[in-house]
Amino acid sequence: MKKYVLITFLMALAVNCCVAQLLLPATKPNPAQQAMIKRGYGMFIHFGINTFNNTEWSDGTLPLESYNPTNLDPDQWVLTAKKAGFRYVLLTTKHHDGFCLWDSKYTTYDVASSPVKMDVVKAVSDACKKYGIQFAVYYSLWDRKEPSYKDKDPQKYVDYMLNQLTELFTNYGTIGELWLDGGWDKKPSDWGVDQIYSLVKKYNPNCAVSVNHTIVNEEGKRNYTPPANMTEDNKYFFQYFPSDFRLWDPELAAKSDKKQYLHEGKSYYLPFEHTICISKRLNWFEKTEPLPTRDLDELEELFYWCTDNDNCLVMNVPPDQTGRIREYVANTAIGLGKRLDLSLNKPLPKNGKFISMNKPVVATSVWDDKNGQYAGNAINDGKMSSRWAAKDTLATVEMELNPSEPFNKISIFEYQDTKRLPDGFSQIRVPRIQQYSVDIMQNGQWQTIYLSDEPMGDCKVIKLPLSYNTSKLRLKVLKATAPPSIYELNVINMQKK
Amino acid sequence: MKKYVLITFLMALAVNCCVAQLLLPATKPNPAQQAMIKRGYGMFIHFGINTFNNTEWSDGTLPLESYNPTNLDPDQWVLTAKKAGFRYVLLTTKHHDGFCLWDSKYTTYDVASSPVKMDVVKAVSDACKKYGIQFAVYYSLWDRKEPSYKDKDPQKYVDYMLNQLTELFTNYGTIGELWLDGGWDKKPSDWGVDQIYSLVKKYNPNCAVSVNHTIVNEEGKRNYTPPANMTEDNKYFFQYFPSDFRLWDPELAAKSDKKQYLHEGKSYYLPFEHTICISKRLNWFEKTEPLPTRDLDELEELFYWCTDNDNCLVMNVPPDQTGRIREYVANTAIGLGKRLDLSLNKPLPKNGKFISMNKPVVATSVWDDKNGQYAGNAINDGKMSSRWAAKDTLATVEMELNPSEPFNKISIFEYQDTKRLPDGFSQIRVPRIQQYSVDIMQNGQWQTIYLSDEPMGDCKVIKLPLSYNTSKLRLKVLKATAPPSIYELNVINMQKK
Repeated sequence: MKKYVLITFLMALAVNCCVAQLLLPATKPNPAQQAMIKRGYGMFIHFGINTFNNTEWSDGTLPLESYNPTNLDPDQWVLTAKKAGFRYVLLTTKHHDGFCLWDSKYTTYDVASSPVKMDVVKAVSDACKKYGIQFAVYYSLWDRKEPSYKDKDPQKYVDYMLNQLTELFTNYGTIGELWLDGGWDKKPSDWGVDQIYSLVKKYNPNCAVSVNHTIVNEEGKRNYTPPANMTEDNKYFFQYFPSDFRLWDPELAAKSDKKQYLHEGKSYYLPFEHTICISKRLNWFEKTEPLPTRDLDELEELFYWCTDNDNCLVMNVPPDQTGRIREYVANTAIGLGKRLDLSLNKPLPKNGKFISMNKPVVATSVWDDKNGQYAGNAINDGKMSSRWAAKDTLATVEMELNPSEPFNKISIFEYQDTKRLPDGFSQIRVPRIQQYSVDIMQNGQWQTIYLSDEPMGDCKVIKLPLSYNTSKLRLKVLKATAPPSIYELNVINMQKK
Repeated sequence: MKKYVLITFLMALAVNCCVAQLLLPATKPNPAQQAMIKRGYGMFIHFGINTFNNTEWSDGTLPLESYNPTNLDPDQWVLTAKKAGFRYVLLTTKHHDGFCLWDSKYTTYDVASSPVKMDVVKAVSDACKKYGIQFAVYYSLWDRKEPSYKDKDPQKYVDYMLNQLTELFTNYGTIGELWLDGGWDKKPSDWGVDQIYSLVKKYNPNCAVSVNHTIVNEEGKRNYTPPANMTEDNKYFFQYFPSDFRLWDPELAAKSDKKQYLHEGKSYYLPFEHTICISKRLNWFEKTEPLPTRDLDELEELFYWCTDNDNCLVMNVPPDQTGRIREYVANTAIGLGKRLDLSLNKPLPKNGKFISMNKPVVATSVWDDKNGQYAGNAINDGKMSSRWAAKDTLATVEMELNPSEPFNKISIFEYQDTKRLPDGFSQIRVPRIQQYSVDIMQNGQWQTIYLSDEPMGDCKVIKLPLSYNTSKLRLKVLKATAPPSIYELNVINMQKK
């Protein structure tokens, strides 16, 4: 049902005037950011026309008839979120293909024109109210279907978005977060971000708004700043202003991620929201073939990493072609929630102290690289983007520690060979390290505290039954199918429960 | 220091007369058995001349000089046992090679004649007193060193044993258990088991005594009954009488293991003591090369299996060539103890209810065998010796369940290809199943509750975050390197803590 309703130029102008007042320079979180940080952990739900076509992206030409869930059950999605301890549900209301999960007056490429007419946005927002979980909205700026998108006057498509967002913000109760995606397809100034921001704040001043790839290295230039590099305050710039938080899907922030970002000479406080997949193969939309989920050890460490330091995490838990989250996928999310003892009424649990951060590291072997980017000290620089890589299959990396600092946990994120699948997104990861030991120096001798003859896997977590102190710790690779490479090796002191 | 001291024939005779009174027909545990069952979980320590020669068995010709630990620390062994929650320590005081870990007057093939003269039996028994753990003794009947062993009068060697056991039972405090091994090398009647039993009971009536391979199928014949077959009372016979418990190293008893065994027409109550290795490669004596330990998931399930139904478990945790238990090996034992919350003052924890036991099973594929021994119903017969084996690489095995019985855990013991190492004992196990799902029937459809793309491993434990009920459960093998084979697939209802 498509009936264009034009917002008057005057109204748009009026909205625009207020923007400067809506996001003020600050060094502490404002109420919208406080609420977001307090929530901290959300379920991301990718569902739409792609789900039924085994694809991650589509261009608006997939037939409406293909959207045909046989057992559509958004209540089950949100009930799963509740059982798993998520505090908000972030729904892809419209992806790049333009297909809308609600009955929009402004397009016919929506659920209302499909074989299964359920208003999914309503069903999810209703279930969120029922289970006491905050509802949140993902909306793609990039729209490969809507004709006004290609109009030479960019405001035409901005008006389309303002109309759709007005539908979303007026018909589905309080929306806690607006996640805008696909900004790379036009100039930042063409998206009317300020108009969107004003519109949203008019309906809910505490809605946190952001655009993917929020921050750049140079003001006015599209030179993206990856989140692992955000280790200095007041060095990087908004490319989308105003935004209440930073996004950089699906990368991970630095362990000591900073919060102050610049716009026109002023500094703004911005937390980071992480986006990860529950799927081991990084699929966002569920595929017909059941794919494995990540191990709980890895998810637990990622949870801690991503919710640390007042940042947030949304984990993608997609429903399948029947319209339900598969039981084993739900079990992984719920299993993580039980393991972490997540509940709405408690603060999010924290990882222990990283006693290894930036301590001196020596590796027996380093991959030749003129920039020296694979040096041993990449393993404890707090960046999941940098890594140590050996030149030899068998190699050892050794770290100095402060012997007065105890530890009882080690987590190792291994770089793995990845095989990208034909969809261009999902991938299979293959560990290189097959056998290894972790040794510590005790009374002048190396002592093995952990020995494994199993592939290291995505993230190896070694929970030690006792606390140790040592001056040196090393990872010794005993067998590998390729030269080993490690993103991070964290030596951690967990508080006893 | 070898000075033969002969026990008079009269004394031996006097001891012999009392035997019939020492073990009485019963259907309930006697005090020695009660104490043993209450202990339930012991640390087995293999240490001796073999430790220094990278071997499991030797023949008494290994030079005494080779026994040369550089940092012998039996206190560390027992402290590890204490930290790990073991309630007794069972020490190999003499293995088949005849080498004695104490200063025996009756041989020079002992620690006192070696480079490191510490009386290890004394050090361990002292540490046991210090840490409040029961001391127990392994002693090999089979002795490849002692000359009297080959005398045509078997009593000569029996006297040697009685003398050595008198040393052990009079100089090292209370010994809670005597574990006799190697009986296969002579006729059962040649070992003087009744004399040994009487001697031991004279010093400690509550010492539980047994000989490896205690039970046979026919009275008076050496037709061993493996413990997995012990599913009927009053059907099998002692070959070594008297014995307070059953041994069959290193096999596992049936889940519904029975307790009544026959001797001369009378029925005796006998619990079973399991013997397992902490090492994944089944080495009893530690090798120079550090070898991996079993996963905690497998050890947890084995602990439950082996201590179930008033049986006992000793787990072998061997010290290395320095004379200490390696730190990573100790960590596995201590980690298991912490996971199971083992402590001296609490009863041993129990597994949940096995709702799958003997339920109807259908397999899509069964290995051709005229005896039908690889049928699907081997996976829930409570026997770790029998197994389902498929003919095809991809196969599914399906089990009917009672839908009124909930479950929240599944454990799967996979048969693996084993590569036996040159020592004739230790082995490398290689899983066949690489990818698999566990599915249940819900509302007429199969629903995957667990999906893995990692090798199944020694024992896969799936802890479900929710309870399920179903009429049918199946294991579906999605990828395997050889036709899959499963010893046991247990569907378990764990009580919530």
